[in-house]
Amino acid sequence: SCHGGEHLSPERKQELEAICQKIATPGKGITATDEGPGTIGGRFENVGVENTEEHRRIYRQMLYDTPGINNYLSAAILDPETMYQKDDDGVPFPQALEKRNIIPGVKPHLKVYELPGCPGDTVMQGLDSLAQRCKEYKAAGAKFAKWRSPLQISRWGPSRLAIEANMNDLARYALICQDEGLVPIVEPDIVMKGEHDLETAMAVNIEVQSTLYKAMLEHGVYMEGTILKTNLVNPGLSCDTDYSVEEIAMANTAVLRRTMPVAIRGVNFLSGGQTLEGAAARLNAINQVKNRMGRMPWNISFSWSWALQAPLLDLCKGKGGKIPLKEMSELYLQELAIASAAAQGKYKEGIPPEVIREDEEVKKKDAD
Amino acid sequence: SCHGGEHLSPERKQELEAICQKIATPGKGITATDEGPGTIGGRFENVGVENTEEHRRIYRQMLYDTPGINNYLSAAILDPETMYQKDDDGVPFPQALEKRNIIPGVKPHLKVYELPGCPGDTVMQGLDSLAQRCKEYKAAGAKFAKWRSPLQISRWGPSRLAIEANMNDLARYALICQDEGLVPIVEPDIVMKGEHDLETAMAVNIEVQSTLYKAMLEHGVYMEGTILKTNLVNPGLSCDTDYSVEEIAMANTAVLRRTMPVAIRGVNFLSGGQTLEGAAARLNAINQVKNRMGRMPWNISFSWSWALQAPLLDLCKGKGGKIPLKEMSELYLQELAIASAAAQGKYKEGIPPEVIREDEEVKKKDAD
Amino acid sequence: SCHGGEHLSPERKQELEAICQKIATPGKGITATDEGPGTIGGRFENVGVENTEEHRRIYRQMLYDTPGINNYLSAAILDPETMYQKDDDGVPFPQALEKRNIIPGVKPHLKVYELPGCPGDTVMQGLDSLAQRCKEYKAAGAKFAKWRSPLQISRWGPSRLAIEANMNDLARYALICQDEGLVPIVEPDIVMKGEHDLETAMAVNIEVQSTLYKAMLEHGVYMEGTILKTNLVNPGLSCDTDYSVEEIAMANTAVLRRTMPVAIRGVNFLSGGQTLEGAAARLNAINQVKNRMGRMPWNISFSWSWALQAPLLDLCKGKGGKIPLKEMSELYLQELAIASAAAQGKYKEGIPPEVIREDEEVKKKDAD
Amino acid sequence: SCHGGEHLSPERKQELEAICQKIATPGKGITATDEGPGTIGGRFENVGVENTEEHRRIYRQMLYDTPGINNYLSAAILDPETMYQKDDDGVPFPQALEKRNIIPGVKPHLKVYELPGCPGDTVMQGLDSLAQRCKEYKAAGAKFAKWRSPLQISRWGPSRLAIEANMNDLARYALICQDEGLVPIVEPDIVMKGEHDLETAMAVNIEVQSTLYKAMLEHGVYMEGTILKTNLVNPGLSCDTDYSVEEIAMANTAVLRRTMPVAIRGVNFLSGGQTLEGAAARLNAINQVKNRMGRMPWNISFSWSWALQAPLLDLCKGKGGKIPLKEMSELYLQELAIASAAAQGKYKEGIPPEVIREDEEVKKKDAD
Repeated sequence: SCHGGEHLSPERKQELEAICQKIATPGKGITATDEGPGTIGGRFENVGVENTEEHRRIYRQMLYDTPGINNYLSAAILDPETMYQKDDDGVPFPQALEKRNIIPGVKPHLKVYELPGCPGDTVMQGLDSLAQRCKEYKAAGAKFAKWRSPLQISRWGPSRLAIEANMNDLARYALICQDEGLVPIVEPDIVMKGEHDLETAMAVNIEVQSTLYKAMLEHGVYMEGTILKTNLVNPGLSCDTDYSVEEIAMANTAVLRRTMPVAIRGVNFLSGGQTLEGAAARLNAINQVKNRMGRMPWNISFSWSWALQAPLLDLCKGKGGKIPLKEMSELYLQELAIASAAAQGKYKEGIPPEVIREDEEVKKKDAD
Repeated sequence: SCHGGEHLSPERKQELEAICQKIATPGKGITATDEGPGTIGGRFENVGVENTEEHRRIYRQMLYDTPGINNYLSAAILDPETMYQKDDDGVPFPQALEKRNIIPGVKPHLKVYELPGCPGDTVMQGLDSLAQRCKEYKAAGAKFAKWRSPLQISRWGPSRLAIEANMNDLARYALICQDEGLVPIVEPDIVMKGEHDLETAMAVNIEVQSTLYKAMLEHGVYMEGTILKTNLVNPGLSCDTDYSVEEIAMANTAVLRRTMPVAIRGVNFLSGGQTLEGAAARLNAINQVKNRMGRMPWNISFSWSWALQAPLLDLCKGKGGKIPLKEMSELYLQELAIASAAAQGKYKEGIPPEVIREDEEVKKKDAD
Repeated sequence: SCHGGEHLSPERKQELEAICQKIATPGKGITATDEGPGTIGGRFENVGVENTEEHRRIYRQMLYDTPGINNYLSAAILDPETMYQKDDDGVPFPQALEKRNIIPGVKPHLKVYELPGCPGDTVMQGLDSLAQRCKEYKAAGAKFAKWRSPLQISRWGPSRLAIEANMNDLARYALICQDEGLVPIVEPDIVMKGEHDLETAMAVNIEVQSTLYKAMLEHGVYMEGTILKTNLVNPGLSCDTDYSVEEIAMANTAVLRRTMPVAIRGVNFLSGGQTLEGAAARLNAINQVKNRMGRMPWNISFSWSWALQAPLLDLCKGKGGKIPLKEMSELYLQELAIASAAAQGKYKEGIPPEVIREDEEVKKKDAD
Repeated sequence: SCHGGEHLSPERKQELEAICQKIATPGKGITATDEGPGTIGGRFENVGVENTEEHRRIYRQMLYDTPGINNYLSAAILDPETMYQKDDDGVPFPQALEKRNIIPGVKPHLKVYELPGCPGDTVMQGLDSLAQRCKEYKAAGAKFAKWRSPLQISRWGPSRLAIEANMNDLARYALICQDEGLVPIVEPDIVMKGEHDLETAMAVNIEVQSTLYKAMLEHGVYMEGTILKTNLVNPGLSCDTDYSVEEIAMANTAVLRRTMPVAIRGVNFLSGGQTLEGAAARLNAINQVKNRMGRMPWNISFSWSWALQAPLLDLCKGKGGKIPLKEMSELYLQELAIASAAAQGKYKEGIPPEVIREDEEVKKKDAD
């Protein structure tokens, strides 16, 4: 009667749980830096920076070694390429991150594939040889992995087939990761494209998440050894109705309360095209609902790529192809202060992030 | 896009949620008195009491009007017959209970039916005309209903068919109840018969409960407007291995953490053949785990029939067919004090229940 | 390992299979006369006939004892009331039908219930005490039962929930019937209301039928001991596109070829609001495809109520409340000749049915 | 409303159907020569032949160009390596086979992977980049593909998870193949290892096949453009009970009749460790049941590797590492004559295969 990670040794289960607990440190979140060379390259080129391995290396180095970020970051997600790159001192990035108390993880999935006959419905590739790659990434220092399964709300979809195929693939991925000693972050991502209203988004998110957890339980995944990354429940980008941040927060918390097992210690929302301010305002409102209503025993935080990096890359404009690492670094720290505040329900728009950070430090002292 | 009780009016949702909140009052539980005339009759006859409607009436009256019980009871489950009986003052029992601040509910299901070809696998009957009967019970004063779906662990079962059939029927029942304004208590009951070990019991309970919640979400049940009643996760009665109360508590809390949505406010464990002491010790240990580990935002309490009533009925022995109501009443109050203590993790074996009750009162004052 | 009717005795399986084989006699079909007293009453009143039990009795008697109909009919479906009525000679209808070599069956289901929150999605009631009622119907002479599960194509539906709930209920019904010695006719009925095109109808029919057969296999139904009754795959009544009879026949045969197990001996299409001519033309075209393409080893015939009875009841108009049994009887026989011809792919519109009937007799002689 | 290959062009559907029809030519079967270099290498080494690419090439050439085999073979399954090898005349094997009227196909799946925590339950790898590989194989001449999903009956399995995961993967594979213009042969293979009796084998085969067809329909696979390859329903190798060939034939035909859609034109049984005589006797008996009972409108034939090749490889023994191609060729032709006879229900043990072949030729002339 295999279930719930019974096949894992007690040590393995403790190891996975300890990683989860650390990722889910209150007030800390994840910096998602796992764009593939092509994706980050496109972003570089948009701001006049050449897409070279060295450019990618020094840019990521800044994202990992800016002083102070470990007050706000518990983990970083790396592209496979970055797993094997080193910092200026010759220390591989995973080890460099570990030293700063930021847990390094990796993105082992490959590319999406559109299912024939099902426009808009895709599956994520990468299960072939996943165990082998996990072994290698773990040897290189990864402590967790992250797998994204995008879904799209349209007139026709996501179809039940797309939901079940993707959630079952996520569950199989999680089972394999845990067997290889990596914490699986499972990421169902219902993208923002579409005309759907908030009500529809709730219904689809509930179907997706409840299918995911059922699949994970059926696969025998050790729930305590996983972390959720997911989209904010939002109306579609082309939706006519306006919703308040409070309404969006209520929708998000309802979805979690109705579906998410408390065995999973934390959820880190993705930004998925939201601005830093937009994503922070919503994450903040969600945490305020949590603080006000209670009964939501999860760390609710961020795992942002675009929301954090878009303003950084903007700094490259007009710099003649140079990457202004110092300026970036300063802004990055301010952004993370905002993100961290939102992760605690303490973010106030308009208030300079430094002030929020101070609050943060005061609070941290109190907590010690 | 129907889901999550969207079809219910805001008032209806509030009404259901308020009932759930009251049932889930910390330190209070449910007295289950919904045995059919035949079942209670058998119990009467075993102790020399004639099975008449009047005997059933005065016995249930004692269960409902013993002074002080509303310190320990938030709700009572009635057999349809009892719904229409009156106390000595001519007040129908549902109204009499309401006056004492105990919420009355009803058992609308009928008899189990064994599925041909599937030894041990049954389905519960009663969905035909359920909406009509709910209407009548609500008119008679019921605020909630309770539906039991027994399952049995054997070499062959419960089969996936039995699990899915029963959990889907429970979900349909819940949907109908809410539409008629009754809170559905959903009761999957994996009976204690069997040779299975605790590990197997965990696996089956996880499969059963995760199937139940998925079915409820698919049916569009308003999760916030439901209460769970379920078996304690226990090894089979014929299991060779001994387990400590602590091990059993860990198994029970793991099942809840991995499956039970926090939108459901409370779980009331059934006794299912356990003695009062046994059931109390286990419920107590579960609440101690909750108090110690946190992250379990449910009221975890009792909904006991046999554990409470077996000692009461024993008092009839040698009384020449008379029902010693006064003696029963006194013992019943002591039992409920134990149950209430266990529902808070404060039960200590060997300590006279009165003392526990005092503690209770002290604590209550503190809480005011 | 229970499956496929393994729990049934060899004698029981043979008995069920023999009934199926007889129902599926080539060139013969089913007269569906199982309208409840209210439904048939409405039809009576529309043509000025009073709805009395005696009127229902003499009308049904005509449908059962018209000489010659057993050339065209293998079976008749009775309402429970009719099961216990007698013909003018005092012979109960089931026995009267048996003597004429027409197998009597019964409709044990009750009323549809609309699922709260799911407009248009219903479930059929009647599973409670079904085993008991089957026992009684069998004692009264029934050899088979028939259970109708209506579904509706709309913008939202039928939902996956409605499809699965209804097909699982049909499977449970079939399992119970076989255990009680009745052949279950399973009837998924996707009603004609709607705007959907033929392509959508195909997709929904394939989903419904494949779900049905999977559910029957999972329940351990003995497939060889069942008969399918279903709707013709048709565009919605409000569909803008016109389809040729040939296109409709191709859609129907594709659905059967892709889903229907050959263990089921026959399918009897319902009329569902189609005229006799319309239903006959389509059934005929389907059988012509079968005759031309082969590889469709089912008897494909009719189980019609309205298509046969509407013209009969029209004869009542202007008769001052009298039922013109003789005229009806003559027309009924002609209609059945048409139906039988269509069940063989020999129906030609415009050709007087008598001639078709003669062909029929010639063929029958050849076959002997 | 995507379903049933609606997304494919009419030409594509015709192309796929024509290939299926040819594979399912009555009296012809498939030679399975898709062992990977390692597997065939092991077989070579067992009989003293060195495992070189040239040895593999000349051996496979013999399997493809033995004169007369196209009387018995409609298709051949190639390992990717063989797809790109050439015969002595420099003609790539796919084209060489085509010229002989034998359809070439390819095995695109990779290796099995055991699911952690589920001893004995595996999934087959190869879905990543499958579309790309299909494109390349088609360009190289493949007309179909074949994907094997092994399952094992044990005390615990195959689990529902293993069945659903494998059948869903098979369906996804089929969808991708058809989109790339290859006919997918779907191969669920319940291996012979185990102690299970024939009854259990039937139950598991029915569950597996019904799950497969449901998954294929849900994925929108064009059923008419697929072929089934599967194991014979057999008791486990370690089963204590003896079954007659007739009993095994009845079990096999029952499974097909209860599950296999007639839209699929043919089933080609694998040999899976059976001897040529054993596999032939069973296939023959199945076809005799088909001929006797009718209502089984599939071509029921063979797709054998080991059953055909084991005797051929035996001829290498004691030949000092040489491959006796001429002897092999003669025996191979005799074996195929037996296989073809079994595919028609005409195989008689003890009768020299040449005689059967003559019958065959007589029959063929009659058929022209």
